[in-house]
Amino acid sequence: MGGYVLVPWERNRENAPAGLDVAVFDGHTKPPEASVLERVEFYVLPYVHFDREAARSSVRLLGHLPRLRAVQTLTAGYDHLVGRLPPDVTLCNGRGLHDASTAEHALALLLAAQRELPRWFAAQQRRVWEPEATGSLADSRVLIVGYGSIGAAIERRLLACDAEVVRVARHARPDEDVHPVAELPDLLPGCDIVVLVAPLTEDTRGLLGPRELGLLPDGALVVNVGRGPVLDTAALRAEQGRIRAALDVTDPEPLPSDDPLWTTPGVVITPHVAGGSATFYPRARRFVDTQLQRWATGQQLHNVVM
Amino acid sequence: MGGYVLVPWERNRENAPAGLDVAVFDGHTKPPEASVLERVEFYVLPYVHFDREAARSSVRLLGHLPRLRAVQTLTAGYDHLVGRLPPDVTLCNGRGLHDASTAEHALALLLAAQRELPRWFAAQQRRVWEPEATGSLADSRVLIVGYGSIGAAIERRLLACDAEVVRVARHARPDEDVHPVAELPDLLPGCDIVVLVAPLTEDTRGLLGPRELGLLPDGALVVNVGRGPVLDTAALRAEQGRIRAALDVTDPEPLPSDDPLWTTPGVVITPHVAGGSATFYPRARRFVDTQLQRWATGQQLHNVVM
Repeated sequence: MGGYVLVPWERNRENAPAGLDVAVFDGHTKPPEASVLERVEFYVLPYVHFDREAARSSVRLLGHLPRLRAVQTLTAGYDHLVGRLPPDVTLCNGRGLHDASTAEHALALLLAAQRELPRWFAAQQRRVWEPEATGSLADSRVLIVGYGSIGAAIERRLLACDAEVVRVARHARPDEDVHPVAELPDLLPGCDIVVLVAPLTEDTRGLLGPRELGLLPDGALVVNVGRGPVLDTAALRAEQGRIRAALDVTDPEPLPSDDPLWTTPGVVITPHVAGGSATFYPRARRFVDTQLQRWATGQQLHNVVM
Repeated sequence: MGGYVLVPWERNRENAPAGLDVAVFDGHTKPPEASVLERVEFYVLPYVHFDREAARSSVRLLGHLPRLRAVQTLTAGYDHLVGRLPPDVTLCNGRGLHDASTAEHALALLLAAQRELPRWFAAQQRRVWEPEATGSLADSRVLIVGYGSIGAAIERRLLACDAEVVRVARHARPDEDVHPVAELPDLLPGCDIVVLVAPLTEDTRGLLGPRELGLLPDGALVVNVGRGPVLDTAALRAEQGRIRAALDVTDPEPLPSDDPLWTTPGVVITPHVAGGSATFYPRARRFVDTQLQRWATGQQLHNVVM
């Protein structure tokens, strides 16, 4: 009896290499019957980021797969699986699958803030036509903090919008024009917009705090599509609107309904939706197709993290 | 007694070629005294698009410039000056100065609609965190109708966002891959988004009417940053939300407070602010500097239209 692969989408089953036994589990409908589960060797967890219960049950299923040899997540993060897998199981993550979606959302937030879309949408509700000049992205200097693959995807979009980009990461990479985060105090006064895409580590927690926000010029914009605690929310509130912010991630998440951040002047919030837009799905499906090809032919899987 | 140049910004006076007599009129403060006005040979009208009274008085000033030889507008349109200038006065327009600003606003509207920003901003007002997957721009097919210099600026931004672009203009330009507007019925069913940047002519009025909107797939988005009447508003309303729209221009303008378009499902509106964002001003100032150089050295001015 050969092994099974468990995939999230029917399309992956249709595209699978001939001879590979494939079953589908989308996280919402019932898992395959026990006779299939006990033969699963490769499990691609469904992407059910927006449904906490489905997310939990898709992880619980790991306990019912005795022949498991490899696990694939469609998220970049995999801390929710650490300690839940036998040591001989290969773990692959979804690094790169969310880059286009996240970069696009960062741009959407940035443009909405610069072109004052919240103001116009509010005016529409009052049926009022009151044009006025707004800011712009073009000709702005944008600091990308946490310059990696998502940062590069953001940069490509910003350059097409005639903005100037300054790259910042943990360590200097002079051949790539990447400044070390230690230079932030020198860089902040000269920039109009800061985009945060840094991961959360002990070094990045509160990276933009009272001192750093204080170094930004009046009216500067902070966009956060990385992790909420990288921006010190109390420090942002203390700026009382002098610094604007467009945030897809907050601290904590979900943001409680009584959190003062909801109504801080100059702050717009989206509920952690940057990575999961429509564009993620075809990319993720194609990636799973590729992994199944490699699995069937015994090649090393992509994105192995453990 | 030599001639004077009348410019909108102090910066232009500072940058003017040595020996050129330059006075400043910004449209809001008092015009120079009569002894200057009677010597003005070149008048750069101030950009006061958002202030109707200032716009009118800047045009009225034309009647007080007996030695006028050339006029420069900072708008692309100049129909408000036709018939108001003696036949020997050269007229130059602001073609190109608004391209970056307009293209950027088109992108802002498009992304806001695809990533459902109005929905998230409304949720913020209710202090509600309810993430859900949205559409995206990446992987979408976008028709740019009225492909010219603004269309090319929009295209550059869309390509950086991993969208596919189809170019449409009045006439086919096969060497540039531009489809003629006559092919619209074949192109509309296969596209996700239509961006209108066409000028208003007898041919383009109602270009997207009931038949054309009916050919678009469910959920398609129409973005209009050209001229309001190019989109048949009644036909859009008749779609009852099947087709979404993000409009910076309407028919009529300003949109009266009792117009049903304000509350048509799936429609977001900004009050004709695409062209006049912050990025326009440095470009316009540099352009005026260049024109003064050419004027002082007797070269042909740029953007002569009459």
